[in-house]
Amino acid sequence: RRAEMAKVSQLIDDEVFRAYATYAAIVLVKMMLMSSITGYFRFTRKAFANPEDTASFGKGESAKKYLRTDPDVERVRRVHLNDLENIVPFVGIGLLYALSGPELSMALLHFRIFTGARILHTFAYLIPLPQPGRGLSWAVGYSVTFSMAYKVLKTAWLL
Amino acid sequence: RRAEMAKVSQLIDDEVFRAYATYAAIVLVKMMLMSSITGYFRFTRKAFANPEDTASFGKGESAKKYLRTDPDVERVRRVHLNDLENIVPFVGIGLLYALSGPELSMALLHFRIFTGARILHTFAYLIPLPQPGRGLSWAVGYSVTFSMAYKVLKTAWLL
Amino acid sequence: RRAEMAKVSQLIDDEVFRAYATYAAIVLVKMMLMSSITGYFRFTRKAFANPEDTASFGKGESAKKYLRTDPDVERVRRVHLNDLENIVPFVGIGLLYALSGPELSMALLHFRIFTGARILHTFAYLIPLPQPGRGLSWAVGYSVTFSMAYKVLKTAWLL
Repeated sequence: RRAEMAKVSQLIDDEVFRAYATYAAIVLVKMMLMSSITGYFRFTRKAFANPEDTASFGKGESAKKYLRTDPDVERVRRVHLNDLENIVPFVGIGLLYALSGPELSMALLHFRIFTGARILHTFAYLIPLPQPGRGLSWAVGYSVTFSMAYKVLKTAWLL
Repeated sequence: RRAEMAKVSQLIDDEVFRAYATYAAIVLVKMMLMSSITGYFRFTRKAFANPEDTASFGKGESAKKYLRTDPDVERVRRVHLNDLENIVPFVGIGLLYALSGPELSMALLHFRIFTGARILHTFAYLIPLPQPGRGLSWAVGYSVTFSMAYKVLKTAWLL
Repeated sequence: RRAEMAKVSQLIDDEVFRAYATYAAIVLVKMMLMSSITGYFRFTRKAFANPEDTASFGKGESAKKYLRTDPDVERVRRVHLNDLENIVPFVGIGLLYALSGPELSMALLHFRIFTGARILHTFAYLIPLPQPGRGLSWAVGYSVTFSMAYKVLKTAWLL
């Protein structure tokens, strides 16, 4: 068993893979925090999607008024969906990229720019900053993932 | 070729990785079943999102009335989105966790609690059970993923 | 360091894994393109979700009229969400499948059918083609992922 373990953990001993694991975990945790922020706004704005969630605010008609959409809740939900659309491809393509033998410096460059851009994107969306702040931070992260996809396809190509 | 194959399949020979593969496949299949349940409710409630989906129910105005939202369909769609927001991070962080050399017993504990919590969450959402049933099952799964992310970052940390 | 690198890149030297990396990158890039198409329709249809996105079209009331939903924008967004619901499980289960030691020919068969089906699905949704074109292409991709999940669970099963 110990011998087997060792073989598998060779992957986590590789510096590029460790960098990937660090940044992938950071952006996934960042994405998950959007759930908590949505919950925070749902409770403070009293805006829920399910009848059973409003039961503690009263019965019948008095609870029904909390079944509504709220601009702040919807905004956080758009950040969350945008994260799903961008962070999930980064995690998938980034794994293949980390296994495609890039230089550590190049890999760190990709991971750092992507992570920075997505953190900026979240602040730009939630504050909100005037455009094109949010648009640019989105485009930077998007381009980094495409750059990694290009390296993966160049290295692995087998159709 | 055989030799290469063998090297790769060492990963699947590792018990922690096998446990990860089992639970990741189970929760991803569970998530995919939400598509079928959405389809089931769309057909039985006759509530569709696309004009071309209603063509078999008549032409023109008589078909248009089926372009509508239905509370049951929307409920399943919320379960599905909640799965995307929670199961996808589990699959990503869980892979890194499985490669970070945890004890098999600890890994099984994480995977089992997460999977149980998400199955409970689906039933709590669809039946629906009174709160905080759904909220608690969501929080348990969420916490398990954070616990795995902590182990990944502690083991792999390379910024 | 070089020796470590070599160990990791053994994964990318495996033909099944290379095929997986190629198709996973292709379908993830395809999914990401939906963001650009959504952006294209938002600008040409002038239909935005955020007040700050309409600022360049005027101030106050004249900008507010662009805060609206548009059928073409909503259609692309449904394609994108459907991709998240189907391509993300393919990428996750496909990785485990590629590591479960399938024959190269069987693996290529799965990856090719899935990728073809999802590209067809996108065209069927966007044109749109009459049903059951879109439904069938969805079902084919869905079945391929289930077939891979079955192989993963048969090979890795450890509850």
